[in-house]
Amino acid sequence: MLFLGQNWSINFGTMPTINEKKQNTMNEFELIKTYFHQFREHESVLVGNGDDCAILQLPKDYGIAMSMDTLVHGVHFDDHFSAEDVGYKALAVNLSDLAAMGAIPAWVMLSLTLPTLDEKFLQGFQKGFFTHFKKYPMALIGGDITKGPLSITIQISGFMPKNKGVLRSGAQPGDKIYVTNTIGDAVLALLYLQNKVTLTAKESAMVLPKLYRPTPRIDEGMKLLDTASSMIDISDGLYGDLTHILSASHVGANLFIDELPLSCVLTGQPESIKRSAALHCGDSYELCFTVPKNKKIPALDSMVTCIGEITTGSHITLYDKHGCQQIVSNESYRHF
Amino acid sequence: MLFLGQNWSINFGTMPTINEKKQNTMNEFELIKTYFHQFREHESVLVGNGDDCAILQLPKDYGIAMSMDTLVHGVHFDDHFSAEDVGYKALAVNLSDLAAMGAIPAWVMLSLTLPTLDEKFLQGFQKGFFTHFKKYPMALIGGDITKGPLSITIQISGFMPKNKGVLRSGAQPGDKIYVTNTIGDAVLALLYLQNKVTLTAKESAMVLPKLYRPTPRIDEGMKLLDTASSMIDISDGLYGDLTHILSASHVGANLFIDELPLSCVLTGQPESIKRSAALHCGDSYELCFTVPKNKKIPALDSMVTCIGEITTGSHITLYDKHGCQQIVSNESYRHF
Repeated sequence: MLFLGQNWSINFGTMPTINEKKQNTMNEFELIKTYFHQFREHESVLVGNGDDCAILQLPKDYGIAMSMDTLVHGVHFDDHFSAEDVGYKALAVNLSDLAAMGAIPAWVMLSLTLPTLDEKFLQGFQKGFFTHFKKYPMALIGGDITKGPLSITIQISGFMPKNKGVLRSGAQPGDKIYVTNTIGDAVLALLYLQNKVTLTAKESAMVLPKLYRPTPRIDEGMKLLDTASSMIDISDGLYGDLTHILSASHVGANLFIDELPLSCVLTGQPESIKRSAALHCGDSYELCFTVPKNKKIPALDSMVTCIGEITTGSHITLYDKHGCQQIVSNESYRHF
Repeated sequence: MLFLGQNWSINFGTMPTINEKKQNTMNEFELIKTYFHQFREHESVLVGNGDDCAILQLPKDYGIAMSMDTLVHGVHFDDHFSAEDVGYKALAVNLSDLAAMGAIPAWVMLSLTLPTLDEKFLQGFQKGFFTHFKKYPMALIGGDITKGPLSITIQISGFMPKNKGVLRSGAQPGDKIYVTNTIGDAVLALLYLQNKVTLTAKESAMVLPKLYRPTPRIDEGMKLLDTASSMIDISDGLYGDLTHILSASHVGANLFIDELPLSCVLTGQPESIKRSAALHCGDSYELCFTVPKNKKIPALDSMVTCIGEITTGSHITLYDKHGCQQIVSNESYRHF
């Protein structure tokens, strides 16, 4: 609404009765004004200040990249996560999708479903959520606050230079396969929370942030725009996500499992956990990308490791450091 | 994913354990392919067929209007609604926001959270959901399928001719206030379902579709683009929604309550129900708009009724047919 700002819609009309009584608590308008009345300015936002819709203009010579993700309490996060972690991660996973295209983050829409008006949760949530706005010049252009079981849906739009954007479909035989930083720590952290592995206090302090606060690789994605032939963010697990690149590009891959970049904490774990975590478990939000042999990777803030090469085949063949083929026993996480 | 189409993301990575077992049921990829692999083509969609993001281009001389709404089971709909109604209404309320700007519907993103993979529900849901795509040339450009308590979040983008768009802030003293069709039937239907009013079978058959299947007034909104000085869709109740126009435009209004367009079913109800339903209850999704005195309203498919006029004041004054001022006892629905 205009006096509150932000194209926040309030479609709560179905269930109330005619004599619905008002409560003396903060209502959804006040909630929006108190917690989500920030980072609304962007030169591309013509009407962000509350109407039925936000009205936006696109910079010349740019297209739009769009993605949307939902995080549900008990499914994507649990009570180990602080409210700040939840706000942070909900936007981080969306930013990660933009990163995988090489897009520039621009407009965010937030739909927050809350069981009760828990101001302590809201204070934490907004702190984590707005962290990303301090890093990237984005605008919160609207959304929805609804009563219901805790979940967060974020829709994000980024700018793409016209005729650019790194798709999953561009990998060619001979291209090298890379990942940023290290993979597998998020699931190690989860196993630790589930008491399925034992970690020292120092070790858990190293891996838990990978679960709670993954870093979307926005800068890396943008810098790889002219270099990578294909790219994806590792949300479901390296093996499954790389398979998406292979399917889209109609190619295969040789993957060198002993080259997978692991943290020192994960390196210290038993072989079975190490391999499963690195290959099959998601939530890394690192970038997996392919680069033609003759292209040089630009300088990135992230460590980059070559983990394999694209082949003319149609599936992944795993090799260990002795050159022996390995068998894959499971793939990515499936939800239903 | 590209082989499935549609920028569907699957960020289910947080909670699974390493040894998560696969079930022999349809997974989220198959689900998307089976139920949401339709209406993906649009000349503005460059990459809709599954990547980390959809990539879109905007027609020359257009801006974008964006909105997002969440519907939660038990809050915005209940088991009286068929799955088809839920799919229909979830998109209808989003389209209604575009209608209130005069925008042209273009791109839809769907986040569907489901407790179980209920194929009967999905069959109904998609039937209702895609109804709108047959009417307007829109593309389903992506989204998310998640496990969790039943809720639907839809994000919608429409095209706005540059420098156009009917805001809430354009009403001027002297402008006439109009609404499309009739208002108040949706809440009458709800009261009937709650056994709070008695209706004949014929009467209930007339009002229930207003609750289950509201018509977004897209065509009317587009035709009013050059005529209306301000516009809003009635989602929270005429009184509250008109107040948003007044606040945004810094004006007041005289509202003639005996002129409010009611259906014959609502007209037959006691005065208190009639007035509350028409003034204070939402879910109508009719348009409320203002028109300068000297402007002629273009021919619309909807009936249009003048219900008042904009004043230099700052609030709503109600008049009955005898010219007597009326007192307002409650406003719109508040959620928390």
